[in-house]
Amino acid sequence: MNTHIITIGDEILIGQVVDTNSAWMGQQLNFFGANVTHIDSISDTMEAIQEALARAVKTADLILMTGGLGPTKDDITKKAIADFMGVEMVFNQPTYDRIIRIFERLGRTTTPAHKEQCYMPANAKLLYNKMGSAPGMWFEYEDTIIVSMPGVPYEMKYLMEHEVLPKIKSHFKVKTVLHRTILTVGEGESRIAARIEDIEAQLPAHIKLAFLPNLGKVRLRLSTIGDDEEALRNELQHYAKQIEDRIPELVFGYEKQTLEEVVGKILKERNLTLATAESCTGGFLAHKITSIAGSSAYFMGSVVAYSNAVKVRQLGVAEATLEAHGAVSEATVVEMVAGARKLLQTDIAIAISGVAGPGGGTPEKPVGTVWLAIGNQEKTVTRKLQIGKDRLKNIEYATVQALNMIRKFVLAEYALIHSDR
Amino acid sequence: MNTHIITIGDEILIGQVVDTNSAWMGQQLNFFGANVTHIDSISDTMEAIQEALARAVKTADLILMTGGLGPTKDDITKKAIADFMGVEMVFNQPTYDRIIRIFERLGRTTTPAHKEQCYMPANAKLLYNKMGSAPGMWFEYEDTIIVSMPGVPYEMKYLMEHEVLPKIKSHFKVKTVLHRTILTVGEGESRIAARIEDIEAQLPAHIKLAFLPNLGKVRLRLSTIGDDEEALRNELQHYAKQIEDRIPELVFGYEKQTLEEVVGKILKERNLTLATAESCTGGFLAHKITSIAGSSAYFMGSVVAYSNAVKVRQLGVAEATLEAHGAVSEATVVEMVAGARKLLQTDIAIAISGVAGPGGGTPEKPVGTVWLAIGNQEKTVTRKLQIGKDRLKNIEYATVQALNMIRKFVLAEYALIHSDR
Repeated sequence: MNTHIITIGDEILIGQVVDTNSAWMGQQLNFFGANVTHIDSISDTMEAIQEALARAVKTADLILMTGGLGPTKDDITKKAIADFMGVEMVFNQPTYDRIIRIFERLGRTTTPAHKEQCYMPANAKLLYNKMGSAPGMWFEYEDTIIVSMPGVPYEMKYLMEHEVLPKIKSHFKVKTVLHRTILTVGEGESRIAARIEDIEAQLPAHIKLAFLPNLGKVRLRLSTIGDDEEALRNELQHYAKQIEDRIPELVFGYEKQTLEEVVGKILKERNLTLATAESCTGGFLAHKITSIAGSSAYFMGSVVAYSNAVKVRQLGVAEATLEAHGAVSEATVVEMVAGARKLLQTDIAIAISGVAGPGGGTPEKPVGTVWLAIGNQEKTVTRKLQIGKDRLKNIEYATVQALNMIRKFVLAEYALIHSDR
Repeated sequence: MNTHIITIGDEILIGQVVDTNSAWMGQQLNFFGANVTHIDSISDTMEAIQEALARAVKTADLILMTGGLGPTKDDITKKAIADFMGVEMVFNQPTYDRIIRIFERLGRTTTPAHKEQCYMPANAKLLYNKMGSAPGMWFEYEDTIIVSMPGVPYEMKYLMEHEVLPKIKSHFKVKTVLHRTILTVGEGESRIAARIEDIEAQLPAHIKLAFLPNLGKVRLRLSTIGDDEEALRNELQHYAKQIEDRIPELVFGYEKQTLEEVVGKILKERNLTLATAESCTGGFLAHKITSIAGSSAYFMGSVVAYSNAVKVRQLGVAEATLEAHGAVSEATVVEMVAGARKLLQTDIAIAISGVAGPGGGTPEKPVGTVWLAIGNQEKTVTRKLQIGKDRLKNIEYATVQALNMIRKFVLAEYALIHSDR
């Protein structure tokens, strides 16, 4: 199926926004064999939109449009599509009712622009957009399917996943494309590649392996395409297992799982409670842990001890320790763990202290130096990282390593079933 | 000058690579008034390249092409351009000599493909590419300038900066484009549009206003184009000021500033210290604040009181308050503020407690209910939000509102210069 993506809006053309939507859509379509042949970024004018549509319908089976559906004046996509197809705009009462309801719940009033927003091309099938006020639209125009979605990434993604992709699957005859993604943490891309080199060399031609690294985590994605779904699935499973058996200690999950989700699951299964004591990560570890629904079952809280005074007063780090070793030291994070466990009364605590940068580095402790410690009543494990110079990357990378330390500590120290806790 | 960008290569279409080149080129061109009207990402086939050129030459004064100039088989851009213009390919000895020299220096031998790479369209002016083996090419075709560059970002950037932009400047009579972006928080897109409707209606035709919303923040971007830079600048300034004067309480900054950066700046200027006490946001507010380099000057730390026990033990929230009003209540966040200020010994503290979801909602406090409080020794201000159903959006939206509460509280309560603190 030949697919065109049309993105509408000057913000991409003037370079204010990098178009990440198209890459994401390209990946999704890829999963079931749709071939994106054009990505066309255009201005939000009637002429540009209609010219792009005229060009695309010549060859495309599917046209995905993003942008230009909001209530402000510069949003004219709908009108342009209607004119292009030669249909009227009609008022859609259910969409208006929904906007009214949303605004009432927020205790706010609507403006005439919101009513304006509810006129839709007469032949549009509306696609429910849980994430925003503008619905998506599905059109069947001659031999081409045209889909219009908002340009806000989370709205577009919601619509694609819940409405557009299922409809595409049922409308077009799609080949089966299967993926199996193994999630790893703890080794870099090239080290993993070396460890599984012989397995990769033996993969049949219709199975591909991709390494997708991201801040200390590497996803290994096996992909295959064909007709016999069950045979393909078994084959993927076979090779996935070979890879896993080779690097078991690195594998933390599959597909779209996140490390924080896996950490939450293993804590919950063991009925353990966790606290964090964070300096350089500034609450980002607590944020990742609490981004998981239901995390209150195992996460009690965090002390973000950004200043040394808070490390001393709240976490009970000894002034002498800070003087002798500094805030970024093994001794300090060990005392932070003990302090956090006691203060927040948890089974386990983890502590992080480092130099996030760009300032604060010294010859002995350059920017990117991070100490971590995790412990329970019996045991404490420490680790030192030397990351890079970018503040946000240092924070994110240290947080990934902290999550992995929790995972490894819990798996090593706590059996899944035990009756005495 | 009407400009089209054509990017060639499947890696963008299948989403393997996000197209950051186009955004960068768009920004550069913007600086001197080139108006990018189309970004066209296409496959590396003769047909696709020639179809894109045929389309672009109809309206474009300038066509910038990237990709498809390397020695591998799928790189056919040059041949496609030559065929499109009806010119021969001719061997270019200086390019070949240079490749031979580079490879000799690296101690490597060339392949026949490298010689192949030195055939150029007869009418190409070659542009010296210090960063790679493939030169850029400049064509004058009828009324259009066509430029072809490698797709590797650092090669493209080198060529743009050292060869292409200077040539564009001298070839075209370049106009000036200016932007002024006003950053707002606290009202939605359509409410702001309604408040400044008359100002927008009066904008001259050469000044455009765009609304760019994102999670409770809206950027208002004024753009203009013309010849007289100073006059344009004054004009933009004039309309920007009209808008600002209409919605002064919503404006937190300009251009690429962030809300957390602005909050940091106003705290630092007043020599104030801040603590946060977070429940539903789980450390995300502390993370945003500490994402700013130098935040340790004003941010002391946070108590992420995810469990009620921590709210009571650490922050001194009364058990009776929790029993009478619940954790998500005005009374609780007010006590959390007092507790955090005392515990972390800061001038100001802010507290957040809410139902992030997806579980935990009740008829009285549905998912998305969030209470916030901010206070110093003398005064505490509270606010209730009713957000949506998505956990991460609730966390992010509440955090934006919290940052805005800090901003407004500090601006209202603390003059910039005071000698008694």
